[in-house]
Amino acid sequence: MTRRPHICEVAPRDGFQSIADPLPTDIKIGIIRDLVAAGCPRVEIGSFVSPKAIPQMADMSEIAAAVMDLPARLCALVPNIRGAENAISAGVKEVCYVFSVSEAHNQSNVRQTVAQSLDGLAAVASALPSDVALRIDVATAFDCPFDGTVPLDDVLAAVRRCAEIAPEAEIALCDTTGRANPFAVRNRFHAAMAVEGTAGNVWAYHGHDTFGQGVANALAAWDAGVDAFDTAAAGLGGCPFAPGATGNTATEDLVFAFNEGGFDTGIDMDGLLSVADRIAALPGGVVGGHLRQVPRNRAA
Amino acid sequence: MTRRPHICEVAPRDGFQSIADPLPTDIKIGIIRDLVAAGCPRVEIGSFVSPKAIPQMADMSEIAAAVMDLPARLCALVPNIRGAENAISAGVKEVCYVFSVSEAHNQSNVRQTVAQSLDGLAAVASALPSDVALRIDVATAFDCPFDGTVPLDDVLAAVRRCAEIAPEAEIALCDTTGRANPFAVRNRFHAAMAVEGTAGNVWAYHGHDTFGQGVANALAAWDAGVDAFDTAAAGLGGCPFAPGATGNTATEDLVFAFNEGGFDTGIDMDGLLSVADRIAALPGGVVGGHLRQVPRNRAA
Repeated sequence: MTRRPHICEVAPRDGFQSIADPLPTDIKIGIIRDLVAAGCPRVEIGSFVSPKAIPQMADMSEIAAAVMDLPARLCALVPNIRGAENAISAGVKEVCYVFSVSEAHNQSNVRQTVAQSLDGLAAVASALPSDVALRIDVATAFDCPFDGTVPLDDVLAAVRRCAEIAPEAEIALCDTTGRANPFAVRNRFHAAMAVEGTAGNVWAYHGHDTFGQGVANALAAWDAGVDAFDTAAAGLGGCPFAPGATGNTATEDLVFAFNEGGFDTGIDMDGLLSVADRIAALPGGVVGGHLRQVPRNRAA
Repeated sequence: MTRRPHICEVAPRDGFQSIADPLPTDIKIGIIRDLVAAGCPRVEIGSFVSPKAIPQMADMSEIAAAVMDLPARLCALVPNIRGAENAISAGVKEVCYVFSVSEAHNQSNVRQTVAQSLDGLAAVASALPSDVALRIDVATAFDCPFDGTVPLDDVLAAVRRCAEIAPEAEIALCDTTGRANPFAVRNRFHAAMAVEGTAGNVWAYHGHDTFGQGVANALAAWDAGVDAFDTAAAGLGGCPFAPGATGNTATEDLVFAFNEGGFDTGIDMDGLLSVADRIAALPGGVVGGHLRQVPRNRAA
């Protein structure tokens, strides 16, 4: 029982960007504060992207300034060197660089070839000050909304390159569409962890619950030795460029599994459910998850 | 890849009894036929219970007569010797005897003490002709809606007694409320399988998705060596005596995990989803599950 699952709450990024009308900045800041108050040890506070591409993230510097002193790991997504520079300027100490293994999805998501994105990763990695950590989101590591099953060899080649560029970075295999199955998750993590040069890397899993596999997939990753998991309170969110990818795995559903299984997530279920209820009440959000539906005295 | 998961479709029992107004008999028969046509290898066709207790099951003999020649294993639930006799008279070749480990739930469900229910099991086991198989549903094997976590020792004592009475029966540990977690499922099956005298028993898992753990729990049982799983198409159902226990694990969600993982369930996803859609359209049913919500061209 010495392993400790490490939940990264992504509702403020993967979730808020899924709501068409940008939320007021103070609402976003309040939810991030409440997530940390509920014990969330890590929160992805948003994306440093072009406000033209994703207007929901236009207020990132203001948000970062307001939350950066909270007692949690706070990371922000960046799609390129410009985003990384803006994140660093805003005081962010952990940047999450994203690219897709699938060419079709990478073009749709960041308008680059995979090779260009890997060059961008190298640029970001070399630009980071020593006190800023790097995480790499390897999107469509299982399934692509355009091309279906992504070849394992392509994933492993991408992982190898990530490890060459950033041998100590955290690498997240991301089930962008939610169509991964638990057997594939376990197998692909085992294969990725066996890639030469990855001994210094740390692993994470980012999943969606679209196909009902969210909790099972995360636990399959846990079985493979992964300790870090992206989830969103109330299951808010999805990928705007992945048709059918509605709904991150609900934080409360995965935390329930770990808490009840005797593993300490550090997250207080009552506090988490309160924030999840607030998130579920946001206008324009698509939410999911199961635990909010059960009688509250049975949830924790 | 030699293991083969064995799905038992329980919508016609656990599901139909959850719909307050009894469904027309021909609708029930049609759905059972369609489930078998979709490749479901095993269907629980209903309960031989007092029509006063559960009026939804008053037409069991008629249903049995209509479906008993279908190419599938067809089982029926029985709470007592009278139900077993009626099932045998109706031609059923597999009876499923149910009792709860928790005294409070057993009283609520079958109006007996656990000791009385175990005596009833012995009576049923000795009354069965040699060509009728016995399955034992050990309900509240994890959590009781009245008493919370059920002590593992109580479960193991019940399992030991089941194996003494019926050393070759199938024994299902049932998560009646859906509140089990995957770690407990794995641990409790390991412990049950280690009980002396169970070497000749076969194991099954019956779960609900109420707390979002349905697929993960079933796969935890699979990891422990369990090959048989109860699920309900469209997630129809619940336990009328277990408050909050809405929703069996959806057959399509678990079949997706196995089919995509390369294990042959024998079930055709398109056919299954067609039946699930029909079940979801039944008036008065509470349904769930994820796979019916995704674009159909991505489901199979």
